[in-house]
Amino acid sequence: LAGAGVRAIVVSVGDELLLGHAVDTNASWVSSRLARLGVRVQEHVTVGDQEEDIRTALMRCIRMADLVIVGGGLGPTPDDRTRAAVAGVTGVPLIEDVTILERLEERFRSGGFESLPPSNRRQALVPEGGEALSNALGTAAGLSLEVEGTWIVVLPGVPREFHAIFDGEVESRILNRFSGRLDPVQELRIHTTGISESVLCDDLERVLPADRGPVSVAYYPDLRGVTVVLTALGAEAAEGNRWLAHLGQAIDPVVSRYRYASKEGDLVEAVAVELLARGWTLAAAESCTGGLIAKRVTDRAGSSQYFLGGVVAYDDGIKVAQLGVPTDLLERHGAVSEEVACRMAEGVRQAFGADVGLGVTGIAGPGGGSADKPVGTVWYAVAIDGETRAEHRRFSGEREAVRERSAQACLALVHRMLPE
Amino acid sequence: LAGAGVRAIVVSVGDELLLGHAVDTNASWVSSRLARLGVRVQEHVTVGDQEEDIRTALMRCIRMADLVIVGGGLGPTPDDRTRAAVAGVTGVPLIEDVTILERLEERFRSGGFESLPPSNRRQALVPEGGEALSNALGTAAGLSLEVEGTWIVVLPGVPREFHAIFDGEVESRILNRFSGRLDPVQELRIHTTGISESVLCDDLERVLPADRGPVSVAYYPDLRGVTVVLTALGAEAAEGNRWLAHLGQAIDPVVSRYRYASKEGDLVEAVAVELLARGWTLAAAESCTGGLIAKRVTDRAGSSQYFLGGVVAYDDGIKVAQLGVPTDLLERHGAVSEEVACRMAEGVRQAFGADVGLGVTGIAGPGGGSADKPVGTVWYAVAIDGETRAEHRRFSGEREAVRERSAQACLALVHRMLPE
Repeated sequence: LAGAGVRAIVVSVGDELLLGHAVDTNASWVSSRLARLGVRVQEHVTVGDQEEDIRTALMRCIRMADLVIVGGGLGPTPDDRTRAAVAGVTGVPLIEDVTILERLEERFRSGGFESLPPSNRRQALVPEGGEALSNALGTAAGLSLEVEGTWIVVLPGVPREFHAIFDGEVESRILNRFSGRLDPVQELRIHTTGISESVLCDDLERVLPADRGPVSVAYYPDLRGVTVVLTALGAEAAEGNRWLAHLGQAIDPVVSRYRYASKEGDLVEAVAVELLARGWTLAAAESCTGGLIAKRVTDRAGSSQYFLGGVVAYDDGIKVAQLGVPTDLLERHGAVSEEVACRMAEGVRQAFGADVGLGVTGIAGPGGGSADKPVGTVWYAVAIDGETRAEHRRFSGEREAVRERSAQACLALVHRMLPE
Repeated sequence: LAGAGVRAIVVSVGDELLLGHAVDTNASWVSSRLARLGVRVQEHVTVGDQEEDIRTALMRCIRMADLVIVGGGLGPTPDDRTRAAVAGVTGVPLIEDVTILERLEERFRSGGFESLPPSNRRQALVPEGGEALSNALGTAAGLSLEVEGTWIVVLPGVPREFHAIFDGEVESRILNRFSGRLDPVQELRIHTTGISESVLCDDLERVLPADRGPVSVAYYPDLRGVTVVLTALGAEAAEGNRWLAHLGQAIDPVVSRYRYASKEGDLVEAVAVELLARGWTLAAAESCTGGLIAKRVTDRAGSSQYFLGGVVAYDDGIKVAQLGVPTDLLERHGAVSEEVACRMAEGVRQAFGADVGLGVTGIAGPGGGSADKPVGTVWYAVAIDGETRAEHRRFSGEREAVRERSAQACLALVHRMLPE
């Protein structure tokens, strides 16, 4: 991530992070905020609670970055040493901030305490020449301090406090302080499903021109598909947008079969929009996905407007009793077959009185595979008024991958069958 | 985290992490594994996809650590540059690994491709003198290489592939390579559900002795419950274990009502063990959880032995048609009521011929709440031969939190009702 703009490093402090007792979400959260503002994050670093480790990390960051955001180590207990480390970087003493001290005293008085506990009194200390950033949600005030031209901002590690102080005080100061040097990321995100990362990449490389101006192309695959992100770096806004539009057009013929529109990158969102536009309802009959499709659909608020419900027909007897799949069909073709997938989709559509029914049956593994139908074999079908369409795939990967991929493929078929 | 033992650094690679498009979970996951093995992680660092940035970070790590675990940048696309960076650290060339190449070719052949896409061919490259770590779940093989006495292990960034290669190949090699220098963390983990962090903490502080020897107590809450972790640091194994047993006994009267046994910390595991021991089957009728319980149960391999399936009765009409909930019961008590939860549990038990039926109905939000039944109100019930028990809760938090807490509370009731 080169560029002459504002370079930032995010430092997270805490033994619990290095012991794997907690996942650091602050670094990702603040990086997303900084990208939007036009600040380039060039590194995240996590260190433990030792004062020397924090100080060493800070000194390296000061040499490399214009802005250092530190999270954690501002609590009242003896293992919270970020204040001392920040002061130690420049050798200034810690001084009691009267305003912060008064707020802490007030906070404890109104909480029924007679006086401020000594351990909390330490939380009013600020390095000389620095500034406190008040914290409405907790006892740990933030800090800010300039060292050798680098601006150091220290926030409490508790995510909602970290977020609140950043949004409340830090963001606007970044806009002021680095005004004229900010370079917001311009990007085009294309969500695809049903095509592998390598095939998509090879196909796109064939249609993309050699000259891509300021734009780089990245691929973010997960079990549900591949997101292609075109990023214009270091260009004027108008030029960046022109390049993004130009390259977006070039790849359109390749991606159009696989793309879906979604702000959050969730295919369920695209399906929901289409169902709502038609006033249609959906019902799901799931075997190998075991409720995953229903769960994903109902993750969305408001899904009761278009989702009636479903049957998890994990046992074959349930396919017969609840979905009306004929026993002889199961015996002749097996549970994982085109015929059974179609009858599941039609059966749940009829039983639930839905406009659209889907059915999915497969072998998620690790057991249950055969030479004829190995683990990963999946049949799925979608029934809409007068038309039932089925597809099958053989997914690689283990149980979770097969289930996620099956759910996504089935939802993609729903999406394709909803008339434009 | 001092100590003369084995020092490790975890490096995560990816522009998507620095842009805040994704949260890094690999660093936390592998740190937890390393702590268990007795390796001290002294830093996490995240860099972007630029080869030079990766190389610079690696060179710093080599000076500081005995073991460097790198995740990410092994994909088939041009923005995957970790291979080249690792080779660049020592100036060795990249060489095609024949075994990996054959595996890739076989993988694509069995996937129906005629030949290996050129971009994937790059994934068979290994730095000279290094070794490939085969990846059963994807195309990105891992790498291992020794540089100036530091062991560098590179794993794909996709978490399940990262996990699988670490567990399959890396863990045992760490045990071998660093044998005699490892200092495993001794800990006692107690998984609880149904009690809040602050109440549990206050209760435990009352029963824990003031002298806890080398043991510290930490609380890790999430939407499903609180895990209490007692950690013995810096003690001989026998002494640490004695202290852990002593303190474990002290807190037992408080935690026994809320604890469940599970290696992975998943309540579904504890329920599965109980069902299997009795040869019993389970069926689920879900409204507000929308398939989440069925999904969680079927996440586990082998769940078809005890899980017959379920009905997602999102729409009230489905509760009537599929579960036999009487219309007048819905009208008199409302869909979110003790009566309806009980009839859902009994209805699915009967319709599916299961030994145990569960039913859950509630208001997940953000809409649908009322003064009488605000968002977060949930009724759930479990029906076992001759006995139906129902409970209700009012959960705080937003939609996802209410759904997760409802599913967990309902599974906890199943767990409590399975006779010891």
